[in-house]
Amino acid sequence: MTLEAIRYSRGRLEVLDQLLLPHQTVYIPVPDADAGWAVINKMQVRGAPAIAIVGCLSLAVELTTGRQFETSAALLAHVRQRLAHLITSRPTAVNLKKAAVTLIELAESAESGGGGVEKLRDSVVSACEAMLAADVADNRAIGEHGAAALLSSAAAGSPVSVLTHCNTGSLATAGHGTALGVIRSLHAAGRLGRAYCTETRPYMQGARLTSYELVHDAIPATLVCDSAVSALLRTGRVQAVVVGADRVAANGDTANKIGTYQLAIAAAHHSVPFYIAAPATSIDLGLPSGDQIPIEERPADEMLQLAGQRVAAQGIEVWNPAFDVTPASLITGGIITEKGVLPAGEVSRIATL
Amino acid sequence: MTLEAIRYSRGRLEVLDQLLLPHQTVYIPVPDADAGWAVINKMQVRGAPAIAIVGCLSLAVELTTGRQFETSAALLAHVRQRLAHLITSRPTAVNLKKAAVTLIELAESAESGGGGVEKLRDSVVSACEAMLAADVADNRAIGEHGAAALLSSAAAGSPVSVLTHCNTGSLATAGHGTALGVIRSLHAAGRLGRAYCTETRPYMQGARLTSYELVHDAIPATLVCDSAVSALLRTGRVQAVVVGADRVAANGDTANKIGTYQLAIAAAHHSVPFYIAAPATSIDLGLPSGDQIPIEERPADEMLQLAGQRVAAQGIEVWNPAFDVTPASLITGGIITEKGVLPAGEVSRIATL
Repeated sequence: MTLEAIRYSRGRLEVLDQLLLPHQTVYIPVPDADAGWAVINKMQVRGAPAIAIVGCLSLAVELTTGRQFETSAALLAHVRQRLAHLITSRPTAVNLKKAAVTLIELAESAESGGGGVEKLRDSVVSACEAMLAADVADNRAIGEHGAAALLSSAAAGSPVSVLTHCNTGSLATAGHGTALGVIRSLHAAGRLGRAYCTETRPYMQGARLTSYELVHDAIPATLVCDSAVSALLRTGRVQAVVVGADRVAANGDTANKIGTYQLAIAAAHHSVPFYIAAPATSIDLGLPSGDQIPIEERPADEMLQLAGQRVAAQGIEVWNPAFDVTPASLITGGIITEKGVLPAGEVSRIATL
Repeated sequence: MTLEAIRYSRGRLEVLDQLLLPHQTVYIPVPDADAGWAVINKMQVRGAPAIAIVGCLSLAVELTTGRQFETSAALLAHVRQRLAHLITSRPTAVNLKKAAVTLIELAESAESGGGGVEKLRDSVVSACEAMLAADVADNRAIGEHGAAALLSSAAAGSPVSVLTHCNTGSLATAGHGTALGVIRSLHAAGRLGRAYCTETRPYMQGARLTSYELVHDAIPATLVCDSAVSALLRTGRVQAVVVGADRVAANGDTANKIGTYQLAIAAAHHSVPFYIAAPATSIDLGLPSGDQIPIEERPADEMLQLAGQRVAAQGIEVWNPAFDVTPASLITGGIITEKGVLPAGEVSRIATL
């Protein structure tokens, strides 16, 4: 059984509450865009691709089951207003912003085409549904390109062991995953030695979610503390580090889960290639460099509490950035997309692939 | 009120159960060497200097209140046997082994001196008590030497902010601390900008213990995730990294809490000086290099559970080394001891200080 993090049929959306994993499996109904905003903001759904899809599908459900509009102009204004609200749910993920721009352009075109309210509604809903299907297909392509890239530098037939960070799997996307998709594709090809995943403090996405997926898929896997990565790399047991991305700037600088930058430094120190695996929509050519990527700081309690228990002394201040920026120079393996693998410094060529 | 982690008076020893901090303050009676072995093995007391002192004091209590011996030869044999057992409680800490060697030599000398059972017993007990007093004095000297070293490269009068890892404070020693002693001495001198401490997974000694001490002493302090250190160093807010040591080899390679090696790589990448602060007894000139330091692997449950709650998916394998080895080349600031500060590559000169 494949784990479904997003359950959708026209007029109905539920998302698996990832804050409760691995202890409880609870699906949250998402009847409208306000509910979509809330599950994204609370991190009940997370991962840049999944955020974009859940945001758009929440609007699709609202349009299918919610209040009716007299004119297509009124419906278009509503779509614009709801998408403008949805993109405020998390400040870093660019995928949802791009999806919103695409949807608005499509809606404007449909509205000016003069097909009326129903046709406009159906165009927007169908476009949201197509995103879900496209994400799975893109992830399988990322997995294949990534596996080929990692194997190209391995001895013929020898297995490759891969370290990853955070969760970029079926729980972060519509299915298969990005960085975890590369691991899944290597495993499917019989060429994975072992997957290593970090715990990924403070949210423990690696310990809770990636471990859960790896055990679910019976992939040989070992969990390590975030701080043990350098000691692990020094043993020579890992041949590549592959992580996801929330946003890639035009120069290849990449924002991803806090700790990614430290992993890249550790990988470079041990001459282990470091890859980003992300859909092309994560690449934001409008941003010249990582310096322009806003970094969200999360509430202190997310560090101070774990599973409802306090894990730090009372009264201590904390610094809790959700992301960091890895400079392109440390992304030594390259950036794996559904269109192919690019050197980090050449992501602006993405449109030519 | 200064926090007392070790409460001792002749014939009575209690240690603060550090596994229960910061939630509960519970002292465990340690009536004999078996109880001393147990509190060290279970990590209810931790930190290389504290382990040595609690191990020796547990023997002192047993000798004071336990069974009587007919002859000094029988008592000497008992002391030898109990110390041989105590040093098996944790494999990495050299301080307890050194203390055991010193005590056995002293006991042999007292026994051959022919003063009888009572005199032999009193010699051993007094020597254990002297270790407690000496440790506090040594830590204050480490703090002063370290503060002077850090300030020597700072602009006149400007504050210095310091990052540390794990717990090396009053909870790890007899008082003041080693790396945390350097922070305390800088603060006392009015020259500390801010202390940053890592959480230190999996045991969370930084979040639970160092944070507790820093809040207790009203030292300006911020807790960060282990994986956020590189992002923090990149901001330029930290002028030095100072950590403790469990064991320093003759070439300066240093075993310390897992994650230390990764911090040293991160510090080098950002050109932030990296210091070890440890008593001279941590230096083991009998070990040519860090390659000879045995690394303890701890049980999986210490990663999989936190405060009794499971924090990772069922069925995942883990790699849980308690320590790692930082090569001398990455200890760019030097090794701070009670006798002075040495370049890491010159620790073999310790006897000449």
